Amino acid sequence: MTKLHRGLIIGRFQPFHNGHSRLIRHILNECNEVIIAIGSSQFNYSFSNPFTAGERLQMVHDTLIEQETDLKKIYIVPISNSENNAVWLSNLSSMVPKFDILYSGNRFVTELVSHNRGTSFTVVIPRLYRKNVYNGTKIRVGMTSDEKWIKCISASTYKIIMENNGVQRMKLLLEIEKSESGDKIREYPNVK
Amino acid sequence: MTKLHRGLIIGRFQPFHNGHSRLIRHILNECNEVIIAIGSSQFNYSFSNPFTAGERLQMVHDTLIEQETDLKKIYIVPISNSENNAVWLSNLSSMVPKFDILYSGNRFVTELVSHNRGTSFTVVIPRLYRKNVYNGTKIRVGMTSDEKWIKCISASTYKIIMENNGVQRMKLLLEIEKSESGDKIREYPNVK
Amino acid sequence: MTKLHRGLIIGRFQPFHNGHSRLIRHILNECNEVIIAIGSSQFNYSFSNPFTAGERLQMVHDTLIEQETDLKKIYIVPISNSENNAVWLSNLSSMVPKFDILYSGNRFVTELVSHNRGTSFTVVIPRLYRKNVYNGTKIRVGMTSDEKWIKCISASTYKIIMENNGVQRMKLLLEIEKSESGDKIREYPNVK
Amino acid sequence: MTKLHRGLIIGRFQPFHNGHSRLIRHILNECNEVIIAIGSSQFNYSFSNPFTAGERLQMVHDTLIEQETDLKKIYIVPISNSENNAVWLSNLSSMVPKFDILYSGNRFVTELVSHNRGTSFTVVIPRLYRKNVYNGTKIRVGMTSDEKWIKCISASTYKIIMENNGVQRMKLLLEIEKSESGDKIREYPNVK
Amino acid sequence: MTKLHRGLIIGRFQPFHNGHSRLIRHILNECNEVIIAIGSSQFNYSFSNPFTAGERLQMVHDTLIEQETDLKKIYIVPISNSENNAVWLSNLSSMVPKFDILYSGNRFVTELVSHNRGTSFTVVIPRLYRKNVYNGTKIRVGMTSDEKWIKCISASTYKIIMENNGVQRMKLLLEIEKSESGDKIREYPNVK
Amino acid sequence: MTKLHRGLIIGRFQPFHNGHSRLIRHILNECNEVIIAIGSSQFNYSFSNPFTAGERLQMVHDTLIEQETDLKKIYIVPISNSENNAVWLSNLSSMVPKFDILYSGNRFVTELVSHNRGTSFTVVIPRLYRKNVYNGTKIRVGMTSDEKWIKCISASTYKIIMENNGVQRMKLLLEIEKSESGDKIREYPNVK
Repeated sequence: MTKLHRGLIIGRFQPFHNGHSRLIRHILNECNEVIIAIGSSQFNYSFSNPFTAGERLQMVHDTLIEQETDLKKIYIVPISNSENNAVWLSNLSSMVPKFDILYSGNRFVTELVSHNRGTSFTVVIPRLYRKNVYNGTKIRVGMTSDEKWIKCISASTYKIIMENNGVQRMKLLLEIEKSESGDKIREYPNVK
Repeated sequence: MTKLHRGLIIGRFQPFHNGHSRLIRHILNECNEVIIAIGSSQFNYSFSNPFTAGERLQMVHDTLIEQETDLKKIYIVPISNSENNAVWLSNLSSMVPKFDILYSGNRFVTELVSHNRGTSFTVVIPRLYRKNVYNGTKIRVGMTSDEKWIKCISASTYKIIMENNGVQRMKLLLEIEKSESGDKIREYPNVK
Repeated sequence: MTKLHRGLIIGRFQPFHNGHSRLIRHILNECNEVIIAIGSSQFNYSFSNPFTAGERLQMVHDTLIEQETDLKKIYIVPISNSENNAVWLSNLSSMVPKFDILYSGNRFVTELVSHNRGTSFTVVIPRLYRKNVYNGTKIRVGMTSDEKWIKCISASTYKIIMENNGVQRMKLLLEIEKSESGDKIREYPNVK
Repeated sequence: MTKLHRGLIIGRFQPFHNGHSRLIRHILNECNEVIIAIGSSQFNYSFSNPFTAGERLQMVHDTLIEQETDLKKIYIVPISNSENNAVWLSNLSSMVPKFDILYSGNRFVTELVSHNRGTSFTVVIPRLYRKNVYNGTKIRVGMTSDEKWIKCISASTYKIIMENNGVQRMKLLLEIEKSESGDKIREYPNVK
Repeated sequence: MTKLHRGLIIGRFQPFHNGHSRLIRHILNECNEVIIAIGSSQFNYSFSNPFTAGERLQMVHDTLIEQETDLKKIYIVPISNSENNAVWLSNLSSMVPKFDILYSGNRFVTELVSHNRGTSFTVVIPRLYRKNVYNGTKIRVGMTSDEKWIKCISASTYKIIMENNGVQRMKLLLEIEKSESGDKIREYPNVK
Repeated sequence: MTKLHRGLIIGRFQPFHNGHSRLIRHILNECNEVIIAIGSSQFNYSFSNPFTAGERLQMVHDTLIEQETDLKKIYIVPISNSENNAVWLSNLSSMVPKFDILYSGNRFVTELVSHNRGTSFTVVIPRLYRKNVYNGTKIRVGMTSDEKWIKCISASTYKIIMENNGVQRMKLLLEIEKSESGDKIREYPNVK
């Protein structure tokens, strides 16, 4: 086959888990290269977005090495979001190499892509592997209670979470989440 | 009467409905010209703000033509919002022709206007026509269940919604709204 | 012909002049409708961008009425710019009705459009009428010296400039432009 | 003691109450100077953030005079928040004089500070005085029902609230809060 | 006199010099209180804006103490600028206590204020004291060559500049200013 | 040696040239890993910043493969800039893995780092290889005249520039740069 195929997946990776890495391996069966876009890169230290883009980048990078993925085929790119949803696709496109296939099971992505008539890539709906287990929200909630979440992530991701006191951070953020209401992201750092 | 009177109404028009158009006709009885400000213009593709500013602009434009309004008397202007509420009035003023009367039943508008001491216009509280029926939130929710909403909007608005797959979009956005929590606008485009 | 053709032109219209209005009339010979996008809408009170979006909107609106243009065929929309040039096209698209032809003699626009592979519209390079005379920069500079600029604009635009003390404003902004250097837009309001 | 000690507290001060002023007096026993940072300065006219930064600044200023605090030892500085929590500390640092001690019982602050390895100041957890009584949320809710809240604030703060029709503003904002859902800050000024 | 008079001056104070402090003393003869707004607060570490808002705040604070000004009459407030000039007045107003007189010899301020019809304050043009000597640009340039600038500032401001290696900073920023072109503020931190 | 050393360089890479890649190889002699931060990521399609972050990312990625660099040791991360220079270091830190050494010959970086007292990394001034030849500005200017620039970049970067019509883009951007003045980035897309 002469034409280069490049796939793209976008996730917040809070944290990067086995469902994500399995999907990446799956795409590498179909494409020569994969772009892994780390969404909501400007958010961190909130219960929904506990880890910084830098921490998430390292989770992805180290897990791929752990799994002996050929990094020549990989691009990992933090992407910030804007208020205007209709603009996210062109912002994304300006931050990553050109791609031929966008892998997304998220119907919102499909909707936004269809809004941009005439895009030059295909949208493919991937089968998510055991998505009730490998689920970001469940893992984050799990981190504050028991240890089952550890089986959902790679050894590398676990190591990065531990080095950054991630469990303690999650417990603290949950506590703040529970005790407050309103626009938490902006109000956290204050004395009430 | 020698002095030109220009009225302004602001709405998100998600979607533009018969209550809005009736209010505009009412204002045209009292003023020579009307400015129709489309608020929250930067938001779209969320359940509360499903339509882009461009789509909403066309709903207003086409409905006014359908109702044989004289467009010489009309200005339709998308307005984006900022975080600082105390600034919205001067931002609005920089984006539209000067106006003499601001029509608003919203007491928040009254409050913000009174905060800007010395404004050069009057605030008038309009009587909203059948506001339990002609209500944006109800219409949006209605679009995902039955067909009663169709009677609340003009033929032109209906046509624009259909051409843009608006009903399907609303159902999708409701589903996302239900299945998620937190800062949805920014998290939508991601794989969980 | 069954298909609706809609053309779009974008300009800063500082101020709106006869070259602009002639181009609009030309497009109305080729298209059923025209979208007139007022660029850099967030800038005002600087020498390059002296008039607010609201003032410019009124210049366009009133000139079109003066020239007996059928306003049913017209959309006038302020558009703000962002730092990321690669995003401007999709931001523009979210703020206006769909269009089929983008009229632009600006090769930068052509370049950006070609960057967005698969757009759904055509770019057409219009012939600008006497572009050395009908030129925004020349008119702005002219406003500070003699009266030749008056012949470049419509009676309506002239009236709006006069009502808003536009000549005095231009002279003041030129003076500030000359006396200072650096990031003027942000430093103006200060005591040195 | 030769070295200057400067403490910093950050709060939204919605409104400034006796718990805040007592903490400031406490810090002045331990430090030569106190920086009082008014957080979320860009928010106002919402139920959680009813007062403008200017109104809050005056509450602090006037209360300190009322309590005969030596203003030579005081800096009062409005601080806006950004989306990126990991950046708030350096933004704060760029807006205030250097400080040696950050007083905060908020564990989120502690977490963010520990994220910035190698900060040049100490974090001290203050004992908040009767924090179930002197509590911003309770006072704001209280303002809409009875008069107990008056005992929680200084005469000066009371005077500023009254002069700005603060009670009426709170009642209005509560009503809007109750009747709506979603991203209220951005949707308030609109007709539904 | 029963009515409280409060004056406001706005400056970038890069750095705060004797012309500024003299103007403040002058205003205190005419008003009961003065608000000192530190403009362009978000800019720092560029040749035109070398000092952070925090450093400038301390220059003002310490100089006023040095000159035995009664701080009960003083408010010092950093203000950031936005792109939309027509909005700066209402942003300013939301960040400071209400004021009755705006002191400004800057005709741009006069122009913007007149744009906001119906403001509740008066604009007064102050006589600047020896404005060719007490001039921010001259002082900044002077800091990179000889020592004459020292006579233009207070002992307190001098101390703060020295403690923060301000002279060395200015020399470095001038060098970068000379060696580069284009959008320096955004490009500085990069390797060419 | 047990401790992991990670170096970081930041550049705009407009375009990525042999001086950059040589520096990266040099750092890999001293550090186990290198983070390559692509600065000013939000800028593109201007003469100083012609290439998108995505194009630049691919230049770096492909050149490193061409030079047989072990990608396990490499992180490539686009970084956007903000107006507040004092904040850039913490924004950078939130977007990349932790690093021990910041390589920069740019004295502005040194200055900003020293402003952040107590950083956890060292700043090292690298020797730039033939910096009069391997110089971004020279290469960009060169692209519009002759072919000498080709020797300054890798075969991979050359290929990416050609595939994206980079030479034609540079000529166009230079022409616009010459013919206009003022705030070009924001005014380009408009009709004059």
